[in-house]
Amino acid sequence: MPAATSRLGAGRRPYGARSSFETSRRAFRDDSATPGTGSSRTPLQDSLGILTPSALHFERHHSGVPVIDPATHELVIHGLVDRPRVLTLADLRRLPSVSRVHFIECAGNSGREHEGRPGADPQQSHGLASCSEWTGVLLSVLLREVGISSTARWVIAEGADAARHARSIPLDKAMDDVVVAYGQNGEALRPEQGYPLRIVAPGWEGNINVKWLRRLHVVDRPYMLRDEAASYTDLMPGGKARRFTFVMEAKSVITRPAGGQSLAGPGDYEITGLAWSGRGAITRVDISSDGGTTWTPATLSEPVLPKAFTRFTLPWRWGGRPTTLRSRCHDETGYVQPTRDALIAARGMTAGPDGYNHYNGIKIWTVDGDGTVRHA
Amino acid sequence: MPAATSRLGAGRRPYGARSSFETSRRAFRDDSATPGTGSSRTPLQDSLGILTPSALHFERHHSGVPVIDPATHELVIHGLVDRPRVLTLADLRRLPSVSRVHFIECAGNSGREHEGRPGADPQQSHGLASCSEWTGVLLSVLLREVGISSTARWVIAEGADAARHARSIPLDKAMDDVVVAYGQNGEALRPEQGYPLRIVAPGWEGNINVKWLRRLHVVDRPYMLRDEAASYTDLMPGGKARRFTFVMEAKSVITRPAGGQSLAGPGDYEITGLAWSGRGAITRVDISSDGGTTWTPATLSEPVLPKAFTRFTLPWRWGGRPTTLRSRCHDETGYVQPTRDALIAARGMTAGPDGYNHYNGIKIWTVDGDGTVRHA
Repeated sequence: MPAATSRLGAGRRPYGARSSFETSRRAFRDDSATPGTGSSRTPLQDSLGILTPSALHFERHHSGVPVIDPATHELVIHGLVDRPRVLTLADLRRLPSVSRVHFIECAGNSGREHEGRPGADPQQSHGLASCSEWTGVLLSVLLREVGISSTARWVIAEGADAARHARSIPLDKAMDDVVVAYGQNGEALRPEQGYPLRIVAPGWEGNINVKWLRRLHVVDRPYMLRDEAASYTDLMPGGKARRFTFVMEAKSVITRPAGGQSLAGPGDYEITGLAWSGRGAITRVDISSDGGTTWTPATLSEPVLPKAFTRFTLPWRWGGRPTTLRSRCHDETGYVQPTRDALIAARGMTAGPDGYNHYNGIKIWTVDGDGTVRHA
Repeated sequence: MPAATSRLGAGRRPYGARSSFETSRRAFRDDSATPGTGSSRTPLQDSLGILTPSALHFERHHSGVPVIDPATHELVIHGLVDRPRVLTLADLRRLPSVSRVHFIECAGNSGREHEGRPGADPQQSHGLASCSEWTGVLLSVLLREVGISSTARWVIAEGADAARHARSIPLDKAMDDVVVAYGQNGEALRPEQGYPLRIVAPGWEGNINVKWLRRLHVVDRPYMLRDEAASYTDLMPGGKARRFTFVMEAKSVITRPAGGQSLAGPGDYEITGLAWSGRGAITRVDISSDGGTTWTPATLSEPVLPKAFTRFTLPWRWGGRPTTLRSRCHDETGYVQPTRDALIAARGMTAGPDGYNHYNGIKIWTVDGDGTVRHA
């Protein structure tokens, strides 16, 4: 009998921590020599349900994580408005709030799959995506509060990081479902996710979800800022850039069994993974365990929420022969996740300045005869 | 301009932590001289959305928090079954999984409200309740796996803590929605919540949600174990104990503005709080800000899930006069949260050996003319 069952256990803690036996961690990849620039990836192979623990939410920043005192932080709203305002966190907490579960995904997530350098595991292949319950004030509430002028068409959101990261948001999205969020998974935002205030633009590429939000400038046109012009653009086969690729299209990945794992011999397993779409709710996920010949619909775990991770599961009996596993999701607009070949036929192989953005091809895991699972 | 906006920020972390400016914490209350026995309460006044951060989930244990190595931990299923089994965590991870958002609430939560010693803030009054996304295997799947005999009627769930906490679960509940959970909010269970394995019995009193689960004994009758006979029983006016009070009835509490907070003068505020029912989904929450004379339905935040915290919100203009705030919830069975007077008329004032259990009366906060909010 284990010792735990006869010894007095540990005491209480005001703010808990995970078990020392748990070692799941974000993975780093430096993509520049600039200090403070880089990303870390969520270990999706360890994911359970649809929520990402805040401690494992992916990170991407251009000048490190600023330390901001919420007691002195202010949000300025100005430009084409009737009543410019400066709001404190306390002011925001008096306004009508919403809490919504949404994924955030970097535009470059799974870009190397496009390129033909697939990730060895779900963290490497798809780990620049995470999902949280966000709480805050609808941007539409703030804009109605200040009164927008008839010539207003866009809102520039600017962060308080040293890079002063900023993006142009079209007014129709701003008035639709964008949240100025102060909460994440039941508590304040984590520093890496924009503490104390950020934009959550549901379903849109990660970098428009401006963190450490300090300013909303209501303007008449997009400003073609650094991170929407020199950077974060997608090139088409002729070398021309697509102008504004906001939406993250439907994508899915099997997280178990997946690359980096192994099956303990023939027998019964569960295939499980995550699907999401920037256009709304996932309606169906098909699984093929025979090279794409036959497809079986997986079960979608409730709740299935729009623009949120959706957990899918399917019981599977492995006979012991080499095979492949792949998932294909559908969203409520009727969109079906495409194959890599179909994407390359449409977009070619020309990478933008940051590599291949907005890739959402079907991911294939290979199962070897000895049970090893690896990228195809 | 704050320094944060011109300095290079902090680097990445493999497993994140909250901001050093955040100080929300569980509150301790020792209810016995026995080492390792006690509880800690969730700071509901700081809650956002419907999820409790795992680090702030309430605790209750009788012999401390055992340290259990998941690599060697085993779950025994035996008794009135065809094929007794010993399962490892790896075995469980191969079985069909579910992820579900459910509250867990101690039977004694808000018992001092019954007694007339109301909590000074939502943490003290209602903090023995929290809500998480739980992932695991349905107990019905495990029981079908081992094959239950025709005489089986109850399942004894036993923990691996030194107190060997155990409870009798009726077979119909076991075959309905009970989960043998290994995951909480997207990662492994936290130690205080039963790492690496626990029972989640949706909607039923906390202590039947056996933590550090090591054994499921399928039997023909309830075993009248210590924590369902000598302890955790409710007395009726005549001094007789009610036999098995499993379900936590519908309850609600306003978390902002609430005791311990203050309003910054007359003006617009949001009233927000949490409602939950062990019998299913919350269908409605009414708010009164005039002593219970008039009631206004609050907005329920989506998703509204059965046997889960439900967030409600209502805009409110405070004119500056002293008043009271109260919330009254309804669930899908038509049950309406009662007043304290109605509960006392039905049950009297006779406390059980652990105090007043299963109290779910309407909670009243008083707003003084200077904006101070306190218990009524």
